[in-house]
Amino acid sequence: MRITTVGLDADDTLWHNETLFRFTQDRLRAMLADYASHDVTTAKLAEVEKRNLRLYGYGVKGFTLSMIETAMELTDGDPPGRLIADILAAGREMLTEPVEPLPGVEDALADLSNGYRLILITKGDLLHQEQKLAASGLGDLFAAVEIVSEKDAGTYARVFDRYGSGPAEAVMAGNSLRSDVLPAIEAGCWGAHIPYEITWAHEMADPPTDHPRFVELASISELPNWVRSLTS
Amino acid sequence: MRITTVGLDADDTLWHNETLFRFTQDRLRAMLADYASHDVTTAKLAEVEKRNLRLYGYGVKGFTLSMIETAMELTDGDPPGRLIADILAAGREMLTEPVEPLPGVEDALADLSNGYRLILITKGDLLHQEQKLAASGLGDLFAAVEIVSEKDAGTYARVFDRYGSGPAEAVMAGNSLRSDVLPAIEAGCWGAHIPYEITWAHEMADPPTDHPRFVELASISELPNWVRSLTS
Repeated sequence: MRITTVGLDADDTLWHNETLFRFTQDRLRAMLADYASHDVTTAKLAEVEKRNLRLYGYGVKGFTLSMIETAMELTDGDPPGRLIADILAAGREMLTEPVEPLPGVEDALADLSNGYRLILITKGDLLHQEQKLAASGLGDLFAAVEIVSEKDAGTYARVFDRYGSGPAEAVMAGNSLRSDVLPAIEAGCWGAHIPYEITWAHEMADPPTDHPRFVELASISELPNWVRSLTS
Repeated sequence: MRITTVGLDADDTLWHNETLFRFTQDRLRAMLADYASHDVTTAKLAEVEKRNLRLYGYGVKGFTLSMIETAMELTDGDPPGRLIADILAAGREMLTEPVEPLPGVEDALADLSNGYRLILITKGDLLHQEQKLAASGLGDLFAAVEIVSEKDAGTYARVFDRYGSGPAEAVMAGNSLRSDVLPAIEAGCWGAHIPYEITWAHEMADPPTDHPRFVELASISELPNWVRSLTS
């Protein structure tokens, strides 16, 4: 058996993302505190986001529009202008937030890039993901970057066929079982789950039990040795 | 000389796009008529869009956020809720607008796909562009689809290296001299300008004079014969 290619998720695998969404949700709950309890705001935002996902996809711009829509619904359709301004500013700050690789990421990628072709595979706003990769300083370690609208088995088969030597010789690693690991395994890849401290409800899933091509790692620092252990 | 690959822009080359933006701008001018003249709204929106381009990139979601910001600025920061609701609805309608190929597009692509590898190369929101391609019914004619954040010479060199046999054996065709034709020619491609009825001010540029790899076509229906004329 042989592994030639390692796919990596970006948000919450290489750098913080969900914490920034949670932080901004906290801000929204505070902005709307005169109109709704924190729980009501949380539930309404989740409902609006879910309804809009098909239309807006993933990323900060759609999230900002969903926050505005949430504010509309929780203020009987007449939010004070200040509230809209604050939401626009919060979205803008998400887009300009500095990007710091998570602990161990730089070393693990530098190690893996000696011997394996690294491919970044991520959802989200195209421009914003490219900007985050550039800001992270990790760009040169990747042989290819694929920003995709959906992560399903077909996506992984296509990407690893195009940039690697097919899914059977590829590892996919990321923090989301639902998006990064399960569909990649379905496509024939090896899957490494590297949990992040928190997971977006939409990304929740159960881990496979005793699947021969699945591993759960405590940290990305364990990824290089696991990948090498497959090539023996 | 040999041409193997034809790249095509999408918006305003394969289907209407700018007319939909213009129509929505008309709606915004009408919504704001109590606060600002049409000219003032037009100028303010252009200013906001330009300021946001680096942050939001191209596409309907960023445009919707820029419309909201324009409304904020023209109402002294306190727009009626109805106005925000109408702008959100207008953005949503842009995302769900039916997609019809422009006259001659289906025949020209079907013709070209016999003998050349077709690649769609477009800016905009990733998910929305994929949805438009699916809705257009043209998806099966393309060997590859590249949704990019910027169209410069490096973009074209990379795309035609990856999916074709390099820029020197590729034609790039589209309605924007600035985005589709000039940078592709700079990358070493052949460039075909197919003007659309209107051009976004941001995309304006002067045509090259007497460039051996440039042509201006009256319609996409002329593209197959021109491409074939290069391979002789």
